[in-house]
Amino acid sequence: MSILALAGGVGGAKLAEGLAAILPPGELTVAVNTGDDFEHLGLRISPDIDTVTYTLAGLNNQEQGWGLAGETWNFIGALERLGGDTWFRLGDLDIATHIERTRRLKTETLSTVTADFATRLGIRQHIVPVSDDPLRTMVATDRGLLAFQDYFVRLRCAPRVERLEFPGIENMKPSAGFMAALSSSELTAIVICPSNPFLSILPILSLPRVRDALEHRRVPLIAVSPIVGGQAVKGPAAKIMNELGIAVSSLGVAAFYDTLLDGLMIDAVDAGLSSDIKGPAILVRDTMMRNSDDRRRVAAEVLAFAERLSQGKSIS
Amino acid sequence: MSILALAGGVGGAKLAEGLAAILPPGELTVAVNTGDDFEHLGLRISPDIDTVTYTLAGLNNQEQGWGLAGETWNFIGALERLGGDTWFRLGDLDIATHIERTRRLKTETLSTVTADFATRLGIRQHIVPVSDDPLRTMVATDRGLLAFQDYFVRLRCAPRVERLEFPGIENMKPSAGFMAALSSSELTAIVICPSNPFLSILPILSLPRVRDALEHRRVPLIAVSPIVGGQAVKGPAAKIMNELGIAVSSLGVAAFYDTLLDGLMIDAVDAGLSSDIKGPAILVRDTMMRNSDDRRRVAAEVLAFAERLSQGKSIS
Repeated sequence: MSILALAGGVGGAKLAEGLAAILPPGELTVAVNTGDDFEHLGLRISPDIDTVTYTLAGLNNQEQGWGLAGETWNFIGALERLGGDTWFRLGDLDIATHIERTRRLKTETLSTVTADFATRLGIRQHIVPVSDDPLRTMVATDRGLLAFQDYFVRLRCAPRVERLEFPGIENMKPSAGFMAALSSSELTAIVICPSNPFLSILPILSLPRVRDALEHRRVPLIAVSPIVGGQAVKGPAAKIMNELGIAVSSLGVAAFYDTLLDGLMIDAVDAGLSSDIKGPAILVRDTMMRNSDDRRRVAAEVLAFAERLSQGKSIS
Repeated sequence: MSILALAGGVGGAKLAEGLAAILPPGELTVAVNTGDDFEHLGLRISPDIDTVTYTLAGLNNQEQGWGLAGETWNFIGALERLGGDTWFRLGDLDIATHIERTRRLKTETLSTVTADFATRLGIRQHIVPVSDDPLRTMVATDRGLLAFQDYFVRLRCAPRVERLEFPGIENMKPSAGFMAALSSSELTAIVICPSNPFLSILPILSLPRVRDALEHRRVPLIAVSPIVGGQAVKGPAAKIMNELGIAVSSLGVAAFYDTLLDGLMIDAVDAGLSSDIKGPAILVRDTMMRNSDDRRRVAAEVLAFAERLSQGKSIS
């Protein structure tokens, strides 16, 4: 059983953690969005890769919901004293990741550095950036075209989103590790984690060859809805879906992924929507992942769902 | 009264702190060695400039004797976990200086960045790098030619020094701020702080035009001996002088500076040497700077010594 999971940051990392915990070592590949990556203070920052890596390593800050456990903030205070840019708050522990990555990227790919960091942190599954090319999400808004982190962190998602752009993506390549997992003869299912469909998953689907490879898959593709009870579990997904005129519900999520999905897992509070969703098989369960037991349980349900789908049976 | 002080790191910073405290704002220029500067982890590090800056800002770690007060070490622990280079230990506060300097050096000079940091940290005297060019001390040793920090930090000064080299120095320029202070009509004295003569002062004296400008000075030039009772107050000065075959005493210091000096301040424990030192006027005092009272006192004695020398009287 070999699983490919597509993930963004925090929401994706939770399901990835559950999958990593129940799958044998090496049987999970998490392909992580790099559209949020940016250069800041001369450092290369890959927020989604770091969230997934920290979470799978058990180093994530569970109280705060992002970043590293035991993080301290002395660097950013000292930077402020010197007049530096402090709108993106880098912790003292976290900055080691960015400094070491930046140094290594002069001679190595993001895939290599990401894999090595994961190994050094004791992670026994694969984490791959979806591309080694400079995929950079731009957000077209009522306040103009914004770099992703300007929109997301500096302006706290306040501008109204009109559309997303991925400049130059037509000339980019998905990473070798991502494509190898997608085309592996061992692959048994593809899972789209409950990440933001627009900010985290659309950049991945927009890479050349990816949508085509997904459409020609020979294994079930399942998404877990990030919208529960008309709200995003975390982050601006609901706000953005609303701004883009898409139903803020699992109906909207199903419409967004459209013909790609074999199965969609939705939360029990949305059970009433299941008969309205056309296309994918629907699995209704408690999808809230509050703790690691939840994450393992949801992951196990996703895998069982995939197995049933691959046997040609859909169960709601 | 306008004073130019030549300084390296910790020893130099102590006297600079004393001078800064007793001189009116703007009347002290500390020209700081940049031969120790290096690039590490992709960051531009200027150890002596930082030591002087932190000390004059009152942010230096007095217990530890170097670095910043309240420093923490979470970054370096996280870097170690990722397999990064940790032989040069950068603190969480300190690294803000290196990141912000590195970022700004893409478009600004080291002189500009150094002056701005000093202003932001509340320093009302001038700190100037001796050069904006890449002055990099190399240490020729029995283990080969070593970059300065390899010798100084990584190998802890263990190799035997044969000579110092400053590659390309013949094509470098002293900084505008340093030369302006040297040639200022307001200048009343030049002070060589009790820094390592070879590691901290020799790079400065080796810059084109500097020795010539010092030799043609119209004001007294005074050094404070860093060797007390046959030992360096701090650091490897004694070891290096021994390896280079120079007397490990104020005699050796006087011989090193030779005809440059008008006056040499030596410690009371070395009073017996004063009659053996040929050339400069000798001032014998307690030169140990344990606290800020000591630093102000030594600074005041240096200034009074300079004033007597400029009136043509030498007093021992």
